[in-house]
Amino acid sequence: MTGTESTSLVCGLDLGGTKLLGVIVDPAGTEPLASAKVPTPRGAEGVINAMVDLASTLADQVQAAGHGQMRALGVGAPGLVDRSGTFRYGPNLPDVVDVPLADVLSARLGVPVVVDNDATCAGWAEHERGASRGANHSLLFTLGTGIGGGMTVKGEVLRGAHGFAGEPGHMVVDPSGPPCPCGRRGCWERYASGTGLGRLGREAAAAGRLTAVLAKVGGDAVLIDGLVVTQAALAGDPEALAVMHTFADWLAFGIANILNVVDSEIVVLGGGLVAAGHLFLDPVRAGVRDLVMGSAHRPEVPIVAAELGERAGAWGAALLAATRT
Amino acid sequence: MTGTESTSLVCGLDLGGTKLLGVIVDPAGTEPLASAKVPTPRGAEGVINAMVDLASTLADQVQAAGHGQMRALGVGAPGLVDRSGTFRYGPNLPDVVDVPLADVLSARLGVPVVVDNDATCAGWAEHERGASRGANHSLLFTLGTGIGGGMTVKGEVLRGAHGFAGEPGHMVVDPSGPPCPCGRRGCWERYASGTGLGRLGREAAAAGRLTAVLAKVGGDAVLIDGLVVTQAALAGDPEALAVMHTFADWLAFGIANILNVVDSEIVVLGGGLVAAGHLFLDPVRAGVRDLVMGSAHRPEVPIVAAELGERAGAWGAALLAATRT
Repeated sequence: MTGTESTSLVCGLDLGGTKLLGVIVDPAGTEPLASAKVPTPRGAEGVINAMVDLASTLADQVQAAGHGQMRALGVGAPGLVDRSGTFRYGPNLPDVVDVPLADVLSARLGVPVVVDNDATCAGWAEHERGASRGANHSLLFTLGTGIGGGMTVKGEVLRGAHGFAGEPGHMVVDPSGPPCPCGRRGCWERYASGTGLGRLGREAAAAGRLTAVLAKVGGDAVLIDGLVVTQAALAGDPEALAVMHTFADWLAFGIANILNVVDSEIVVLGGGLVAAGHLFLDPVRAGVRDLVMGSAHRPEVPIVAAELGERAGAWGAALLAATRT
Repeated sequence: MTGTESTSLVCGLDLGGTKLLGVIVDPAGTEPLASAKVPTPRGAEGVINAMVDLASTLADQVQAAGHGQMRALGVGAPGLVDRSGTFRYGPNLPDVVDVPLADVLSARLGVPVVVDNDATCAGWAEHERGASRGANHSLLFTLGTGIGGGMTVKGEVLRGAHGFAGEPGHMVVDPSGPPCPCGRRGCWERYASGTGLGRLGREAAAAGRLTAVLAKVGGDAVLIDGLVVTQAALAGDPEALAVMHTFADWLAFGIANILNVVDSEIVVLGGGLVAAGHLFLDPVRAGVRDLVMGSAHRPEVPIVAAELGERAGAWGAALLAATRT
């Protein structure tokens, strides 16, 4: 599915709520030629300027090293991106709404630009170069501030009718659950994202558990986040392991819900949490086995860690741009 | 997407937990040439004999009327059907497990046989001849004993990696909800199916509401089902209308969850309940508008009643067989 043109280069940018990450790739190559990361500025104009600067810097850098020219740009953006490449809305970029990113960046950079959802891009990168290589029907979930989703169907990206497919984080899994910034209650990402793990940790501490972790952050439960819970679990703290298991149960729960609807052949989990490896992958696997409909009558779906790390979104955006331009 | 061969006929059978419904169609035609319905026998052998008999009877009938021969059979079955046409498992046919329906029926009838999920077939019929004609990305939910699902992506049936896509009824929407025969708690179909409407009605009666409906069934709350609640709501009973609104909220809730993941351009609702029309369609539409992610930044997805009635599953099975054989 990658382009056959190998002499010209494609840039990929992953626009996040806090950082903007760029790579530049030869679409036929196995690894990006260069990558860089800058903080995400506030406001649409600042964001666009930063994207133009980062893409230009990366292009200049590889050209100076003797590689070809940038011929296209791909962008992954954190929210709803319509099929014209307009970023409609994303809860983590509240001051960037209804901005025609593809048109504006293309005019500024003089190359074709494609824009898609960030997790869709990461899912495509894992499908082309990572953990779901060779799978026609794949699902990727990125566990960070929220939960992003990327899906392939018959070997192609599932974009949906308007380009908005793959927003599993706001699937409501408990209507009496905690409020979500999106306005609903009990969204899946309140439980099964990195942020959700921190929340489960703070709840455990408030209930008198997670004592070692609480001591480690100086006794203030507010300072407990997903990272400290993960580190404590990796170090063998039984109370942190218990929180990790509750987290894994919620993760399994949402994965099973989605597998019942789309029936994928592999599930890839990305985000910083995958560092915890089998500590949470094993209970997630057991939970999905338990929860998916008719489990005894269907093949088990492998649930694996993502392979491409934090560059997946930018890399996938570049690979998508290579195929679509 | 239908076959171009118009001189030979295709039979479609819809295997349900209580009834077996058959149609015979000219794939190029607009309406089935004949249809018939028999009770579903118990046990795999009885089911297979009944299917062979019904298909043969329909084929003889149309041939006697001067039409062509049956050249293929399509079957819709209520549960997991793998890509080889083996019926793996369905909660409403507990004594039919892991039966290679396609192979057995093909050997008995001497024509190619394709088997797929019943709601997948119904969704395909609505896509080809009914409410979602012309939509590339469509969703159908059939609201009956449970909730079946059929989906198209890019104008084709979404079967998933193993053929098991489209089982939304067992999406868990409330982990502390009522137990489901599948072993989990709070599955969507406990709330938003025909059976779910009956349960919401019985709960309301137990809480001292729904007095007129309760009187109508002789004071025994156990006798309240989805049909009597629907009829009372249609007659303007305010307490039944309130139950219908709660039901519509649960329905909207699950539809929004699934739209967030797959982003379809139309949602079709089938099953006996669609007789209640705008009484529940209007609150479902309002609920989905409220619940789908980034509602203000995306086009509203039409939610409409199915058009083909109870023959949709058999009809769609025939149309799928026409394209696949």
